[in-house]
Amino acid sequence: MTNITGLLSQVHATTPLVHHITNYVTVNDCANVTLAIGGSPIMADSIQEAAAITAISSSLVVNIGTLNEQTIEAMISACQQANKLGIPVILDPVGAGASELRNQTIQQLLTKATINVLRGNISEIRYIAGLQSETKGVDASAADLESTDGVTVAQTTAAQLNAVVAITGATDIVSDGHRTVTIHNGHAMLAKVTGTGCMCSSLVGAYCGANPQQLLEATVAAIASMGIAGELAFEKAGALGTGSFHIALIDAISQLSETLLTDRGDIYGY
Amino acid sequence: MTNITGLLSQVHATTPLVHHITNYVTVNDCANVTLAIGGSPIMADSIQEAAAITAISSSLVVNIGTLNEQTIEAMISACQQANKLGIPVILDPVGAGASELRNQTIQQLLTKATINVLRGNISEIRYIAGLQSETKGVDASAADLESTDGVTVAQTTAAQLNAVVAITGATDIVSDGHRTVTIHNGHAMLAKVTGTGCMCSSLVGAYCGANPQQLLEATVAAIASMGIAGELAFEKAGALGTGSFHIALIDAISQLSETLLTDRGDIYGY
Amino acid sequence: MTNITGLLSQVHATTPLVHHITNYVTVNDCANVTLAIGGSPIMADSIQEAAAITAISSSLVVNIGTLNEQTIEAMISACQQANKLGIPVILDPVGAGASELRNQTIQQLLTKATINVLRGNISEIRYIAGLQSETKGVDASAADLESTDGVTVAQTTAAQLNAVVAITGATDIVSDGHRTVTIHNGHAMLAKVTGTGCMCSSLVGAYCGANPQQLLEATVAAIASMGIAGELAFEKAGALGTGSFHIALIDAISQLSETLLTDRGDIYGY
Repeated sequence: MTNITGLLSQVHATTPLVHHITNYVTVNDCANVTLAIGGSPIMADSIQEAAAITAISSSLVVNIGTLNEQTIEAMISACQQANKLGIPVILDPVGAGASELRNQTIQQLLTKATINVLRGNISEIRYIAGLQSETKGVDASAADLESTDGVTVAQTTAAQLNAVVAITGATDIVSDGHRTVTIHNGHAMLAKVTGTGCMCSSLVGAYCGANPQQLLEATVAAIASMGIAGELAFEKAGALGTGSFHIALIDAISQLSETLLTDRGDIYGY
Repeated sequence: MTNITGLLSQVHATTPLVHHITNYVTVNDCANVTLAIGGSPIMADSIQEAAAITAISSSLVVNIGTLNEQTIEAMISACQQANKLGIPVILDPVGAGASELRNQTIQQLLTKATINVLRGNISEIRYIAGLQSETKGVDASAADLESTDGVTVAQTTAAQLNAVVAITGATDIVSDGHRTVTIHNGHAMLAKVTGTGCMCSSLVGAYCGANPQQLLEATVAAIASMGIAGELAFEKAGALGTGSFHIALIDAISQLSETLLTDRGDIYGY
Repeated sequence: MTNITGLLSQVHATTPLVHHITNYVTVNDCANVTLAIGGSPIMADSIQEAAAITAISSSLVVNIGTLNEQTIEAMISACQQANKLGIPVILDPVGAGASELRNQTIQQLLTKATINVLRGNISEIRYIAGLQSETKGVDASAADLESTDGVTVAQTTAAQLNAVVAITGATDIVSDGHRTVTIHNGHAMLAKVTGTGCMCSSLVGAYCGANPQQLLEATVAAIASMGIAGELAFEKAGALGTGSFHIALIDAISQLSETLLTDRGDIYGY
């Protein structure tokens, strides 16, 4: 089993500054989960300061949920700065396949910079892997969910990009091309709150920022954290509705501990 | 009485993708209520992808709460695409009358595209109807609220625009120029949470996306849904404060049912 | 002791319209706390309408948390309009010192317009005062927090800018250069929710908009309001986690009263 012991403690001990260039839909939640897990968020998407902010950060999270011309340039500039300084870059390819703009932006980012961790749903990662994808907006399509080749897609894409690739869904899959891990935590209600994918990428940013030498393990720990928090939130507030579940999710992230991760983590290595 | 039976079930059955070009103040709540009612939100406001995203959507919600030059062009492009494909367009004219930019944008949208549903407060709709309006910011003015001609304003504006017009307030009025409906649900505390108007427009988007042949009924059902959710939220959390009321509102939307709508809906047709 | 009696009642009585040009991370919370304290928020950051919206407002809050070229121009235009009309301008210099863009923007705002109230953390205000600052992102640095010259920094900067300067932290310091006040309310958990500083600036906007002749007292009352709300929120929800604390904070602001401010306010004048 992949050992994630100590990674959360490292987040708590180092308070990594996580630079986000992200969408305006879920940005507040991304900032709050970064704080909740023990990091410090900073959002800056002007081309005039993106690289400078990246330079003082521990990791960079790029999320293409709401693109415009200015932010695309800022993303490229920030990614290149991060690459130069050895700062981990996490890409969340929201809605990959849904529009030419998103597809071209992903292509540009992958061509002009090195992505260290790629986290998306099965439709998004299939699109990036060059496979047929049935994206409907920003959620994974039913057709893609039924395809049973998630592990292969993750492994192949990871090898192709020389990156850690995480496909989140009912079962989460994380691979660096050599090692592959599945995580069986989480709850279906997570799909009823906008941005739980984005928030998960923020957690990956915080864990990777604090543990830059263990990107696979850090990604696994982040995704397990979100899954366990989803379970705890459902137990506490699922019956109340999606608003209360949303708040309970952030509560749970703010109260995660090494013990909780050990006790509830349902993680298998291949 | 206007029959809204079955419209919510249709939202649940079809998960309409609701494209929003909306303000950054309340966008997270708009996404979450779209999910809560059973739809799927997508936000995209770049001119480079707006029309493409509209093309894969079931409805388009345009909200002028925070305008800039780029998003205005995207709004026009998306509306025209929606018109071409027969996708319902909902316009929320936030702050109509408060600035030339907002007024000109509304004028442009009405001239260059067809709006299918217009939802605003009495000050905003009075402005669009060409009547004297006493807008103070984004809330209805006291002077406009005291005017008792809401039904006439709704009917006239609907006939003028050949659209469904909804004026929300203490009593909500919906008209398509021929039929007019009033809804007597809701609670005053809704005005103490930012974006309940915007969220209402998102619900209209979800209902119209799932029921495109019944735009009047869909709009009535959406507004009744918000009103009933406001009542339920007040019963549950009103005494706690506006933060808890806000969360309880989203909880209530996520737990609405045909039965609740039938039991609590206070809807009259003229 | 600085007398803040009656200032909150004045907010409730006049519902000041507070124009915000602010970041997209915490904007929803800023709008909701403005409503919760009894004001009315309006957000507008297009150069094409910023000055027009300021002209109908009671105060202007400028927050540089997420800058871009367009919003900087809008900020300058709105500040100049506010100066011309005698409308109080509040500046929240988020991340001052963290990038050239932020530094130049602050410089431009201070050169081209008059700021009436400046509210930031010790690192941000030290930077503006021309002192060495150890900014790490948007939070105060440990080194700056350990420096014990907060009162002197506030007094000197206030005299320099001819403005009210507020440094918020474990102890809050407010000075107009002549009079200096410290506020000892608050709770450490406020730092675990994003945007509590921004929200505090929104409260300053609401109080100053309603009490434009008493900017020092209004600023003290706003900061005491946030501190007391933080204490109440911790008592009610601190044990639940940061998500529930966040909601309880807005609840508490919506239920503040003159009595609560008098009973719990821990305010000392120098």
